[in-house]
Amino acid sequence: MALRMPWARDNIKRLRPYTPGEQPGDGAVIKLNTNENPYPPAAAVLEAIRAVTPDSLRRYPPPRADAFRQVAAKVHGVTAEQVIATNGGDELLRMAVTAFCDPAHGAANFAGGLGVAEPSYSLYDVLAAIHDTPVVRIALEADWSIPADFAARLNHAGCRLALLVNPHAPSGVATPVAHLERIAREFRGVLLIDEAYVDFADADVLPLLDPARKLTNVLLLRTLSKGYSLAGLRFGYGLGSAPLIATLHKVRDSYNTDIVAQTAAAAALRHRTEAQQTWHAVVAERARLAAELHQRGLATPPSQSNFLLATCPRGRPSAPMIYEALKARGILVRYFDQDRLRDKLRITVGSPPQNDALLAALDAVD
Amino acid sequence: MALRMPWARDNIKRLRPYTPGEQPGDGAVIKLNTNENPYPPAAAVLEAIRAVTPDSLRRYPPPRADAFRQVAAKVHGVTAEQVIATNGGDELLRMAVTAFCDPAHGAANFAGGLGVAEPSYSLYDVLAAIHDTPVVRIALEADWSIPADFAARLNHAGCRLALLVNPHAPSGVATPVAHLERIAREFRGVLLIDEAYVDFADADVLPLLDPARKLTNVLLLRTLSKGYSLAGLRFGYGLGSAPLIATLHKVRDSYNTDIVAQTAAAAALRHRTEAQQTWHAVVAERARLAAELHQRGLATPPSQSNFLLATCPRGRPSAPMIYEALKARGILVRYFDQDRLRDKLRITVGSPPQNDALLAALDAVD
Repeated sequence: MALRMPWARDNIKRLRPYTPGEQPGDGAVIKLNTNENPYPPAAAVLEAIRAVTPDSLRRYPPPRADAFRQVAAKVHGVTAEQVIATNGGDELLRMAVTAFCDPAHGAANFAGGLGVAEPSYSLYDVLAAIHDTPVVRIALEADWSIPADFAARLNHAGCRLALLVNPHAPSGVATPVAHLERIAREFRGVLLIDEAYVDFADADVLPLLDPARKLTNVLLLRTLSKGYSLAGLRFGYGLGSAPLIATLHKVRDSYNTDIVAQTAAAAALRHRTEAQQTWHAVVAERARLAAELHQRGLATPPSQSNFLLATCPRGRPSAPMIYEALKARGILVRYFDQDRLRDKLRITVGSPPQNDALLAALDAVD
Repeated sequence: MALRMPWARDNIKRLRPYTPGEQPGDGAVIKLNTNENPYPPAAAVLEAIRAVTPDSLRRYPPPRADAFRQVAAKVHGVTAEQVIATNGGDELLRMAVTAFCDPAHGAANFAGGLGVAEPSYSLYDVLAAIHDTPVVRIALEADWSIPADFAARLNHAGCRLALLVNPHAPSGVATPVAHLERIAREFRGVLLIDEAYVDFADADVLPLLDPARKLTNVLLLRTLSKGYSLAGLRFGYGLGSAPLIATLHKVRDSYNTDIVAQTAAAAALRHRTEAQQTWHAVVAERARLAAELHQRGLATPPSQSNFLLATCPRGRPSAPMIYEALKARGILVRYFDQDRLRDKLRITVGSPPQNDALLAALDAVD
């Protein structure tokens, strides 16, 4: 950023903002770079949006999205007090950092920061930097599993919040719920499990919210961006114990979700059987694409998400070269210039023709 | 809040959240309590919403709302780099506090907080409390004008950001642009002028952004909630110098506005002549309502907004009693239980029949 920013806080001046995946204006590009669902949202969602009235636009919306929360509560078998609606899942992440982490303000011997697994969704670090709270990064094992001493190390560092994306991004690997439960029991802060990709997984971690388990420090993040084909709508929600959700409401912008999105999101959850069909289609294609990539020498860990992390074989064109070659052929995938990922590409599972186009392009690159 | 919140930061535990005005589910209630525009949004806005495509919902939206920013830049005679789109004006306020104010973290002799005029929009204090930054409150004069030493006192306290709503809420009084320019020149931090109600005023403060003035520390807040009858849509924007706007982009949630709202907001600005007709109607009704209130002994300062701050005469039913009596008759106005406002009611200017109903109800209370 070449511009001088005389008024910014020092941590904001230093900040390197999050870089979203490319969003080309050209509709002909095959986008396998931002984990969008290749199938359209349910027809009922469009109908809900088109049914919006001038009067509902004119008035302030229900500040807590009560109608949506009731639908979500019913779907997940919790109470509405255990649900908070947010402007995309990203907003829930920011709110959790705001509510639970202390800014360090340059203090020595600081405790009260954020714990994350490494590598992970890079936005986590950006949110911590904006809030000026230190980040404790715990490296994942070689198979992308969470180390056994994850919670112990975060406790030692005094972390107040841990962010785990499960299934993991960018590997797609899922952690068994029993392992997450052990972490939640041992960790003395809030454990936020980012379930952005849960709709493509064999199981969710909702059992952790069972009242009998008394895990009142567990917060689940859900988003309609992937599973419900609604990345453009910006709607997510949190699920957790009532005190945890009440804490988040305190730091929520007064009217953080709009009436169009509230109505559309409620319709999406009511008609989720339609979305479920897209999940089945993506999961089937994921298996086919993984097998095809494997045949071409690109290994992928077992993914429970709507993407695959493909390792490019040594001695062939490097991952960034393949990324560029695919881009030149009108196919976008994601390359991360960071440790442990420089020989890899994250590829969103597309529709069968999109995946075929990707495979054909890879063959041409080879 | 009866719930224990063991994980919350101390400042969040102590926090008293912002209380939005009542939003009754009953459509028969006459709502003169949250400054909504009584007239519907432009037809083009509804058309834009209904034209949303499944594919635009499925994909992530343009992160910076580029198409909207270009429309706004054209309308206001600035460049797109001087515009930031936000999820309601409230989000711009939060982002400014985040970007410019340091958290105090209990430090003695702290400098770097927020400056506000008192009384003002109570959300300002809530945002500061969430961010844990101290607030310097400067009392307005008896006629609601800004004291001459406003900037000097904020400089003395080391404030990094000042929030001024102009026209002022809850009085409706506007400050001359020359006075605001003096404050901006003298103040050593960022001056955010919250123009939520500017569409009902005789003049705006856009001249402050004239490059020849070199007031790179001035940030204007605009919202579509009032002037464009779109409170339900949550769309606002900031206007300022390019370095100021770039700083705010750094703390913005990655995709903070959704594609439906972006499209609808751009349509609203493109078709603003339709909104302008509602502004003229509200301004005409404001004059009539003020005269009628005056006749009934309820004085109001000269308002440049879509509301009037009415002082209830001594010796009659008190302001909270009138508030309750109106509510019992199905009319909501706003009562603020705080210094200098306990004998007053803030009344949104409604449509002619709504204002007639209010006046009839007041006569019945009397």
